[in-house]
Amino acid sequence: MPSWLNDPIAAPSASHVEDARRRQDQLTKPAGSLGRLEDLAIRLAGLQRKHRPTAERVRIVVFAGDHGVTAAGVSPFPQSVTLEMIRNFSRGGAAISVLARQLRAVLEVVDVGAAGDPGPLPGVISCRAGAGTKDFRAHPAMDREELRVALQAGADAVARASQTGCDLFIGGEMGIGNTTAAAAMVCALLRQPAILIAGPGAGLNPAGVTRKAEVIDQALAHHGKHLRHPLEIMAAVGGFEIAALTGACIAAAQRGLPVLVDGFIVSTAALAAVQLRPEVLPWLIFAHQSAEPGHQAVLKALGATPLLELGMRLGEASGSAVAVPLLRLACALHAEMATFAEAGVSTAE
Amino acid sequence: MPSWLNDPIAAPSASHVEDARRRQDQLTKPAGSLGRLEDLAIRLAGLQRKHRPTAERVRIVVFAGDHGVTAAGVSPFPQSVTLEMIRNFSRGGAAISVLARQLRAVLEVVDVGAAGDPGPLPGVISCRAGAGTKDFRAHPAMDREELRVALQAGADAVARASQTGCDLFIGGEMGIGNTTAAAAMVCALLRQPAILIAGPGAGLNPAGVTRKAEVIDQALAHHGKHLRHPLEIMAAVGGFEIAALTGACIAAAQRGLPVLVDGFIVSTAALAAVQLRPEVLPWLIFAHQSAEPGHQAVLKALGATPLLELGMRLGEASGSAVAVPLLRLACALHAEMATFAEAGVSTAE
Repeated sequence: MPSWLNDPIAAPSASHVEDARRRQDQLTKPAGSLGRLEDLAIRLAGLQRKHRPTAERVRIVVFAGDHGVTAAGVSPFPQSVTLEMIRNFSRGGAAISVLARQLRAVLEVVDVGAAGDPGPLPGVISCRAGAGTKDFRAHPAMDREELRVALQAGADAVARASQTGCDLFIGGEMGIGNTTAAAAMVCALLRQPAILIAGPGAGLNPAGVTRKAEVIDQALAHHGKHLRHPLEIMAAVGGFEIAALTGACIAAAQRGLPVLVDGFIVSTAALAAVQLRPEVLPWLIFAHQSAEPGHQAVLKALGATPLLELGMRLGEASGSAVAVPLLRLACALHAEMATFAEAGVSTAE
Repeated sequence: MPSWLNDPIAAPSASHVEDARRRQDQLTKPAGSLGRLEDLAIRLAGLQRKHRPTAERVRIVVFAGDHGVTAAGVSPFPQSVTLEMIRNFSRGGAAISVLARQLRAVLEVVDVGAAGDPGPLPGVISCRAGAGTKDFRAHPAMDREELRVALQAGADAVARASQTGCDLFIGGEMGIGNTTAAAAMVCALLRQPAILIAGPGAGLNPAGVTRKAEVIDQALAHHGKHLRHPLEIMAAVGGFEIAALTGACIAAAQRGLPVLVDGFIVSTAALAAVQLRPEVLPWLIFAHQSAEPGHQAVLKALGATPLLELGMRLGEASGSAVAVPLLRLACALHAEMATFAEAGVSTAE
């Protein structure tokens, strides 16, 4: 497997964390009364090695790929929607397009393997590992070379973010059928039965969810002896965009770039990254508890409590995008509030 | 009591709600996948009677007042902090000062009765009902004229917001001891024992919370027969800033201005407003579930689930401020996303 996956990952700066914690206790408010906003500022100080962390320069990269398993009827939407949505991202009409504009964030779309090649489009980068994955009911979703290309697509996106200056990296995904691939991965990564992990995705009814769980269980039985390692699991039942997100999580930690993790699919990619490289975990800030039921199992395995729970289940990094203002406000409070001494305010007795 | 409290309150526009709901179902996303952001846009459309609601022009008014009951030792902070914090608001060093700047919101501070008169300060309006309330262990917190002035201070703040153009009104509070007054009000409004409602406020230890609950129970026993009506309860154990917030909630509903409700204190004022005028409730959007335990009882009584739960317990409208970006993003998504037809994206089968 690509040797860069084993490149070193630094720990967050304990001295910056300690300094930020001391400052929070001197600001004009009862100690701890800003709750998780205090924790966010303190964590970001340690990750960015800054006394005044920032979340102004945000890079959002949406990885898009298709899934052979859609042939099993696991999504209410046709596969063509992945390509149609790539065009919608490019023209600025998708949810994440709107959110990125509002947040003054850079939005990049990476085609890591839609079934059809969209050709050159503004804001879309082509890093195609293939024309969609194979149907994992009968075949591995991808071969080793396709997996390598997809992981590299994630690392390359992080490199571009890092080179242009970036306080916070956000990965997102688009791919009809990818809640099925992610659920299959979670079942294999956490050794859970599919009926506990599979969910409605883009809108399956209960009978559809049951069918989806059967598809996953049968596929996992088929691939049984090739599910010992996270990258084997990725190749067997994963997806190009999921592999790219796993590569992006590892590369971001290697470059010292905090990652704001979106919902079920991105968290599954993050789980694979943490199983490969446990040092990735401190670099991940979890944004939103998805309505997709499998997300809870992933978050529990990672010991994570997301910042928001708004019932969203769209993907596209939308859950992360919505949490960006919280990080910005946390940083502004940390940097700009007066201390008790500066303001001449009496402290608690 | 002031006759304006009985002025008419319109219902939100059902046709705008219906139109917004239809639009949400045509946007390029699985139906319902933006969760509570969809609900927010739909509600705001009905409240603002606009097809494209907005939350750009935000007015934050922090009402400050002091509490005679601080003599009972119910806060770890000295009473002087209320005045010191008014100065801190004015100089821009408080949490809400920072948040308002970040949000490009107008911040106004109304001194509705700090113990000491701060005199003229930039950004601070003087509407003093008195020099702090009386100690409600032995006296009514305020008399009828003080209550009238405080309610009017809230209505006047809403009138100023409305005259300068405002999409969203946010009320906040500052007042050492005001979690004790609010807890006493909640006990009387909802007929709950103080031990279930009183909390640590700005940082009491468990013994302090027990003492606070005893103070409240004794005061409620003392005022027993004068606790039949929300305004009697306000006068007996409330606070000037709480009364102003109750007046503001009613006046905002009368003017058709949505209110983003902060934590425990503001929600208590909102509860009194809803008990006085049930038609106020649809105009209230609840922002943040406070860490203060009594907040849950108030929210349950109002059937409300706040947007955020970040462990904040600061007051100053900080919980509402942090939720403003969610409303803005919800409005932007509603206005700017492409429909399936516009984007040429296939719909679910």
